Amino acid sequence: MSKSAATLTHIARTAEVSPSTVSKVLNGRSGVSAETRERVERALRTHGYSPPAERHRQPFVELVFERVESAFAIEIIRGVQRAAVSRGMSVVLTESGDRHTPGPEWLDQVLQRRPSGVVLVFSDLPKASKERLALRGIPFVILDPAGDPAPDVPSVGSANWSGGVQAARHLLELGHRSIGVIGGPHDMMCSRARVSGFRAALDEAGVPFRADALRWGDFLREDGLALGRELLQLPDRPTAIFAGNDLMALGVLEAARMLGLSVPRELSVVGYDDLEIARWSGPPLTTVRQPLAEMGEQAALLALDAHRGTLRAARVDLATSLVVRDSTAPPAKA
Amino acid sequence: MSKSAATLTHIARTAEVSPSTVSKVLNGRSGVSAETRERVERALRTHGYSPPAERHRQPFVELVFERVESAFAIEIIRGVQRAAVSRGMSVVLTESGDRHTPGPEWLDQVLQRRPSGVVLVFSDLPKASKERLALRGIPFVILDPAGDPAPDVPSVGSANWSGGVQAARHLLELGHRSIGVIGGPHDMMCSRARVSGFRAALDEAGVPFRADALRWGDFLREDGLALGRELLQLPDRPTAIFAGNDLMALGVLEAARMLGLSVPRELSVVGYDDLEIARWSGPPLTTVRQPLAEMGEQAALLALDAHRGTLRAARVDLATSLVVRDSTAPPAKA
Repeated sequence: MSKSAATLTHIARTAEVSPSTVSKVLNGRSGVSAETRERVERALRTHGYSPPAERHRQPFVELVFERVESAFAIEIIRGVQRAAVSRGMSVVLTESGDRHTPGPEWLDQVLQRRPSGVVLVFSDLPKASKERLALRGIPFVILDPAGDPAPDVPSVGSANWSGGVQAARHLLELGHRSIGVIGGPHDMMCSRARVSGFRAALDEAGVPFRADALRWGDFLREDGLALGRELLQLPDRPTAIFAGNDLMALGVLEAARMLGLSVPRELSVVGYDDLEIARWSGPPLTTVRQPLAEMGEQAALLALDAHRGTLRAARVDLATSLVVRDSTAPPAKA
Repeated sequence: MSKSAATLTHIARTAEVSPSTVSKVLNGRSGVSAETRERVERALRTHGYSPPAERHRQPFVELVFERVESAFAIEIIRGVQRAAVSRGMSVVLTESGDRHTPGPEWLDQVLQRRPSGVVLVFSDLPKASKERLALRGIPFVILDPAGDPAPDVPSVGSANWSGGVQAARHLLELGHRSIGVIGGPHDMMCSRARVSGFRAALDEAGVPFRADALRWGDFLREDGLALGRELLQLPDRPTAIFAGNDLMALGVLEAARMLGLSVPRELSVVGYDDLEIARWSGPPLTTVRQPLAEMGEQAALLALDAHRGTLRAARVDLATSLVVRDSTAPPAKA
């Protein structure tokens, strides 16, 4: 009898079940009651069970979105794909649906599929699910562009605050002194970090932050359009607007177009993200690049490399960078 | 000895190899020379070998892109995902790289992974690869928006010609009589079908097709920009432009913006595809919707349902439809 078989027999005896039930629990197979499953998992933990070697895992990375969405998702997929290919693996895509946390059915499926690593986008897992994955040696990493990672889980994000700083410095260098800001949702840390960095750079330069020209949107083009119209109709019209993401920046471009304002001659616009659409707008958008593909790649590599050692609860923030295109210019002479 | 084991033993004898070698060949495992593999495959075919039952296949759809690219890919992924979920399966994404046909390494990996079905986007397979998949009962479908399917393989596309007709009828109904056209690559059947449908609708209405205002681009925004500038600077400037895809239509919008022409007051623009970006442009784009998500879903379901019967070399073309937004209006009074 192999060492691992002996271990399973011992655990089965502790949990008062058959060894095949222990194996069922480990592999997420059906036919085990929730009560029994918990008893077995308790026994596994008590025994300090360590999951079997790598050969038991299948050569793929599982990438989980709440929903496979728009331009954002494709960048992440591309990065995870790159990491998988570099390890001779493939990518399995799953959607957890409209919840922020994948449900128990998802978890059972994952235990059956036995991926080499899991990358969760924008989601977190309930504590019990984290434990169940850990027990089976399936490492997971949260890809969290929202900037609010769970403390006990490794995660990858990007430097939102310094992205805001870069946007402000660019506009200041061009000579803008009256700048409007349309932030993303006020309750998301990434939105607040971007606006806060923007404000810090103005402070540093001794340029007043226009609290009267600050709005919070919901990351949608329509918000950029509606709030952009508001800002552009203020008595003291700003000469530039910083939008918290590219979609809202596109809305600001549209607001300017509808009001007959020429960009960048009469209004400069800076976006955030550098999605592909930023290159395609009229005019092409100056924006802060959030390296989504690299973030996906990094998250996948973190998960895959966890095999070779322990995966600590680390936070990796990748750098953001300014991409200057045609939507920004010095302000028109008053 | 089971019936299938008996079959394999018989085939092994014919090919003068061991049964385990036959099994290796069937499962794409390494350690078999190309020469032996061919001999075994010949024996399998001669024997009229029929692949094992469904339980041998893994519950996922393999989706193969040359490259996971832009907004186009995400729509397809979304559709394939939807089909997979409806069958309780997941999606494995792979890239075949810069070739139009996935190479032999890819094929070996697929044989090892044993998907329930394969969807190839924009690609075709060499005859030998088709045979090797067929021999193992792995059904595959080509998703071919380019409109030029291989004749011996089931494929899913969309109605390009009738999309062109719809674009023309819309502009004709608005009163346009002088229309420029920027087609996609002249050597792609989908481009030609769109332009040809457009022209047929003009003919039907007795409106002359302006051969002097026809250009062929490469589906890039830059082509729309450069060729759009050309058309808009013709002595007899067209009042509307039909672009062969959304990206080129965005380029035309940019050309108009740079020349100070207001869309849709002075110029109407119609695109093709209805990618997400079509909703986000300034102004939002009237375009012909190619149902990419539905095409992906249909292709995946075709492949998955092949299990239950035989997959015939069928061509399914899904309908296109016009989506009217803000980039089209009646022409300005002369």
